[in-house]
Amino acid sequence: MNFASDNTAAIAPAILDAIIAANHGFAIGYGDDELTARVTRRIARVFEHEVAVLLVPTGTAANALALAQLSPPWGAVLCHGESHIATDECGAPEFFGGGLKLVPLPGVGCKIAPDTLRGALDAGPWGGPHHVSASVLSLTQATEAGTVYRPDEVARLAALAHQRGLAVHMDGARFANALTRLQVSPAEATWKAGIDVMSLGATKGGALAAEAIVFFDPARAAGMAERRKRGGHLLSKHRFLAAQLDAYFADGCWLELAAHANRMADRLAARLAMAGLDPVWPVEANEVFVMLPRKIDERLRAVGASYYPWKTNALPKGVPVAADGVLVRLVTSFATTGTDVDRFADTVRGR
Amino acid sequence: MNFASDNTAAIAPAILDAIIAANHGFAIGYGDDELTARVTRRIARVFEHEVAVLLVPTGTAANALALAQLSPPWGAVLCHGESHIATDECGAPEFFGGGLKLVPLPGVGCKIAPDTLRGALDAGPWGGPHHVSASVLSLTQATEAGTVYRPDEVARLAALAHQRGLAVHMDGARFANALTRLQVSPAEATWKAGIDVMSLGATKGGALAAEAIVFFDPARAAGMAERRKRGGHLLSKHRFLAAQLDAYFADGCWLELAAHANRMADRLAARLAMAGLDPVWPVEANEVFVMLPRKIDERLRAVGASYYPWKTNALPKGVPVAADGVLVRLVTSFATTGTDVDRFADTVRGR
Amino acid sequence: MNFASDNTAAIAPAILDAIIAANHGFAIGYGDDELTARVTRRIARVFEHEVAVLLVPTGTAANALALAQLSPPWGAVLCHGESHIATDECGAPEFFGGGLKLVPLPGVGCKIAPDTLRGALDAGPWGGPHHVSASVLSLTQATEAGTVYRPDEVARLAALAHQRGLAVHMDGARFANALTRLQVSPAEATWKAGIDVMSLGATKGGALAAEAIVFFDPARAAGMAERRKRGGHLLSKHRFLAAQLDAYFADGCWLELAAHANRMADRLAARLAMAGLDPVWPVEANEVFVMLPRKIDERLRAVGASYYPWKTNALPKGVPVAADGVLVRLVTSFATTGTDVDRFADTVRGR
Amino acid sequence: MNFASDNTAAIAPAILDAIIAANHGFAIGYGDDELTARVTRRIARVFEHEVAVLLVPTGTAANALALAQLSPPWGAVLCHGESHIATDECGAPEFFGGGLKLVPLPGVGCKIAPDTLRGALDAGPWGGPHHVSASVLSLTQATEAGTVYRPDEVARLAALAHQRGLAVHMDGARFANALTRLQVSPAEATWKAGIDVMSLGATKGGALAAEAIVFFDPARAAGMAERRKRGGHLLSKHRFLAAQLDAYFADGCWLELAAHANRMADRLAARLAMAGLDPVWPVEANEVFVMLPRKIDERLRAVGASYYPWKTNALPKGVPVAADGVLVRLVTSFATTGTDVDRFADTVRGR
Repeated sequence: MNFASDNTAAIAPAILDAIIAANHGFAIGYGDDELTARVTRRIARVFEHEVAVLLVPTGTAANALALAQLSPPWGAVLCHGESHIATDECGAPEFFGGGLKLVPLPGVGCKIAPDTLRGALDAGPWGGPHHVSASVLSLTQATEAGTVYRPDEVARLAALAHQRGLAVHMDGARFANALTRLQVSPAEATWKAGIDVMSLGATKGGALAAEAIVFFDPARAAGMAERRKRGGHLLSKHRFLAAQLDAYFADGCWLELAAHANRMADRLAARLAMAGLDPVWPVEANEVFVMLPRKIDERLRAVGASYYPWKTNALPKGVPVAADGVLVRLVTSFATTGTDVDRFADTVRGR
Repeated sequence: MNFASDNTAAIAPAILDAIIAANHGFAIGYGDDELTARVTRRIARVFEHEVAVLLVPTGTAANALALAQLSPPWGAVLCHGESHIATDECGAPEFFGGGLKLVPLPGVGCKIAPDTLRGALDAGPWGGPHHVSASVLSLTQATEAGTVYRPDEVARLAALAHQRGLAVHMDGARFANALTRLQVSPAEATWKAGIDVMSLGATKGGALAAEAIVFFDPARAAGMAERRKRGGHLLSKHRFLAAQLDAYFADGCWLELAAHANRMADRLAARLAMAGLDPVWPVEANEVFVMLPRKIDERLRAVGASYYPWKTNALPKGVPVAADGVLVRLVTSFATTGTDVDRFADTVRGR
Repeated sequence: MNFASDNTAAIAPAILDAIIAANHGFAIGYGDDELTARVTRRIARVFEHEVAVLLVPTGTAANALALAQLSPPWGAVLCHGESHIATDECGAPEFFGGGLKLVPLPGVGCKIAPDTLRGALDAGPWGGPHHVSASVLSLTQATEAGTVYRPDEVARLAALAHQRGLAVHMDGARFANALTRLQVSPAEATWKAGIDVMSLGATKGGALAAEAIVFFDPARAAGMAERRKRGGHLLSKHRFLAAQLDAYFADGCWLELAAHANRMADRLAARLAMAGLDPVWPVEANEVFVMLPRKIDERLRAVGASYYPWKTNALPKGVPVAADGVLVRLVTSFATTGTDVDRFADTVRGR
Repeated sequence: MNFASDNTAAIAPAILDAIIAANHGFAIGYGDDELTARVTRRIARVFEHEVAVLLVPTGTAANALALAQLSPPWGAVLCHGESHIATDECGAPEFFGGGLKLVPLPGVGCKIAPDTLRGALDAGPWGGPHHVSASVLSLTQATEAGTVYRPDEVARLAALAHQRGLAVHMDGARFANALTRLQVSPAEATWKAGIDVMSLGATKGGALAAEAIVFFDPARAAGMAERRKRGGHLLSKHRFLAAQLDAYFADGCWLELAAHANRMADRLAARLAMAGLDPVWPVEANEVFVMLPRKIDERLRAVGASYYPWKTNALPKGVPVAADGVLVRLVTSFATTGTDVDRFADTVRGR
């Protein structure tokens, strides 16, 4: 019963098979191989748009390199205060960005509301020599709360950002989970809504370690190859990075993996609701957040269930904070089984 | 006939098997798993010394993170002018080190001679507020020229460095190749000779993407976990990084793989010598550098041989530079076959 | 009627005289001169404590260099959200600190309350590899709101910080103004209350361009000389920097200059109160913030009064925000005259 | 008898007078004042070209900010190996440049020869993701050896650089000394010869602390205001920085000050030659380098002469290195008197 994170799962079979299949003969290193060319073309087809693609092994690298490219060192990246870039990357964006500043915005369910963004942009002060310049809006899709921005929500935020000269970045570590829920095309969820650059994750979705930085305007990627190399993120045996992403995006694999994870989250939420535990946020991706009574928490721990307690300032108004309760995050993945979900729910119900 | 680099090879079977074997169930991420603990213990045993170990996916990351840890931003890293850190990492050490300076030293066969090091340390100016402080000596083992430092050579250089307060780093991207040749223990080749920290490579030796930063004084590694994370080099599914290195160091696997590569280099050198092409440097690891007559170069290219031309200022005196020749680097690996070596040599000889 | 900033004033006569007096003969550069030694001794006497002192030309340099010294690049500096380091230095602390993070705290009158600090330290998450480490508490004295921390307030905040392993920095760009108001000794206002390092400003107080970074534990300053040099902040003709600070701290000059500025602020506040305009915060240093009716604002501008409108989230509850009003900041300095103050107040009152 | 450096001199009277003259009333800070506008116009007239100008207090700041602007973090700045930026700024260019690399070139008399530059550009490797990109050529005028590039020499070097896409920077800490010797216009010595950006020094020439960064293509200065601010180099009481430079460039003051310094150097060289001590390099600016017999060195020290011993690899072939001699640098300035020069020479001759 492992609900600690989607990165506690192993490698999805199709992706491991691709690594094995790529393991023959010699291939030129550093991304000049055939598989890398193929995965770039594949991502372009998936998004129905010309793209520049850089593959890297971690999501933190993808985010930090992308933001460093989009913002000058004296720029500010506006993001939700509980986003991964703001709280879980040990300052990687600031490091890669030469000392840029992340400006944390509030928002229920870890989503930024248009009014909040507008307010921050209006309030400033921004720019001139004294103040950092608002340079990038970064949206996380799905969010840290397992909620999802609809394309029209992205579009409104992106329009506000673009009006002020900001670029728009999407941290898509769980993009597949969001997309599956939204039932829109990758294009509609991204560049058609105003996303300029995205971190497109595969690791949480089932890869060993593979993420893509995708520029929808390839001209904007000038210098990225150098950034990646000097960041230590250019893999020599690059074909194995490409193989993972090629398999991930082939034949809808990524969406199937994500759909399973989402279904498991839905099932978990439904079972917990039957036990009187409603999620504090809508379950829109592969995460369920509930306030667990202390006793139930102990019972679950006793039978070996694994998950993390959670701290947040992003709860909706009116969510009851039980005096004896603990807010927990439950994450499902392609590897989560219905059996585990049911056993977890049964344990909650004391069965 | 691929002699372009040892990183054009695929994954060694034992290492791929280990990845496959690790691919079951859930494992806590970010290095808190069992396999990671095991590989740390294994490396300690291999080196007969207490160690702090950090795993990262690339050699550039290993080098840059280690040097940034050993040198203040106003420090200088003394290294051979043709070393990988100086010429092939797009400034990664400077970036991770907050603007530190690499000071290039000359040396035949890409080896730094004690007198050269002493001269540089004496000449300065070093330190005070105006000048950067000499902080680290970085040695590459095996060197970019495929030559090897003997333990007593390392010891003399390290002693000079330590006398002046410098730390000593070893870039061991091809450490296994050097060790196999030297026929000494890992301990003798490193900490017993004065190495403080090393980048211990496995990728060129047969891994998918796996390197270890090894501190022989664990106290010196304080803060490294944060450096790695904010560098984007902490893999979430860390077990698969650990699995590679665990298999690599198990049962002498790494030395067998390296020994094969070295044997292939020896064989290649011997065959080429029979054709009148002597290596410009002693073949001490898995690289052979020869001056190819233009016609032979063309003949080899015509049959699909793959290798790189090479530029260097580190040739020994008296090496004839043929007017119509091209200096080339030929790299062997665990995947190089005797058949390929022989075919290459035969092509050289026009058979 | 210039109330735009204390840095719109010229050089105080005693300080200019000191520059002129220093302008004879030759003096060794870069701070090895007699005057620099003297000013260091003088600052030690003023603070009744052994100190390490580094002189720099700007307050931004003083703050950024001090914070970079106290925090690792993966550290967080907790500060008021409207402090100078957070909003007015274009990211200098982040740049000098290698990408450190400023964590903005709220607080009425730009003062951080102990509960706010405790809450932030408790909430985290801090440290481990994933999160930045809380490393420094930075207090501004006097604050951006012209309010002042009493020594016991500093002591409570510093104690909380020290308990969690944070260093405590004071941005004392207007330290003299605070000290004059508090009627305590420099020692009581700083190291006796737990300040580890301070930026001790003289420019706003009357210097041409001179600030001191003061370490109350000299051992903590190791490497600062190098930081200053590579930051471009080591003046070659250093005697002239020293001369300014020597004159500033001689014979209570700094306190007299500040006392005048404070008196002018008090007088301005009193006159405005008589006109029905109460300051939104207590006037504790040399700044007065009032909500000006639009008509009065226009009348003042018409007669050439100079001052800035102000934006803040740090107003006390209950401050009426007049629909037709504008919050303005009025800063006095050693150069402000009673005549200007009175003329300003008279204009407000329509005389 | 102070020949230690031109920065051991005080402030030239005309410049101090300008500071005093500026010391009245209020002036808006941070460079929005009248004097700053005037000095910008003045520099444009002096150079007969549209310019963007940023004033900073130190030469290290001017150099580091300019180079960071001209080079990406993965760029290389080619410069003489003994130039100030390479050896005397404690890594400031690397720090401000986000980890850029200085590539040291050899050259007699600290001048880079066109063949040397061409060789370095040809040799590489440059660019691609693996290697840093050759981005800037930095020339020092006058050089650290007190020699001077003629406009046609600058033009040849700049043309080579521009052909390969490099920008050309001039470190003009002693530009006035060079210009006075060359008897050409400022325009001929700079932009007409291909200089893109220069650090235009006044401190060594007679200012308290004042340097200008001059962009001959103002568009290239975008973002420089932010760089300067976050570098801590934007002075609040900016009028006093401007006043220094305004006086320096008014009525040929800078050239007169430099001409005096040069004359003193010539006189010193002539007197030393009469004593059998020929300068090791031509005396073309305000520095004389001679090999002093140990006994003479001791005699000079005994009577209080101040100067530095010098280390260099840039001596011309055939300069005799006396076994008992010490190479010394003797620097003259606007404040050097003929009496001091003569007394120095007399002491050398044992009078």
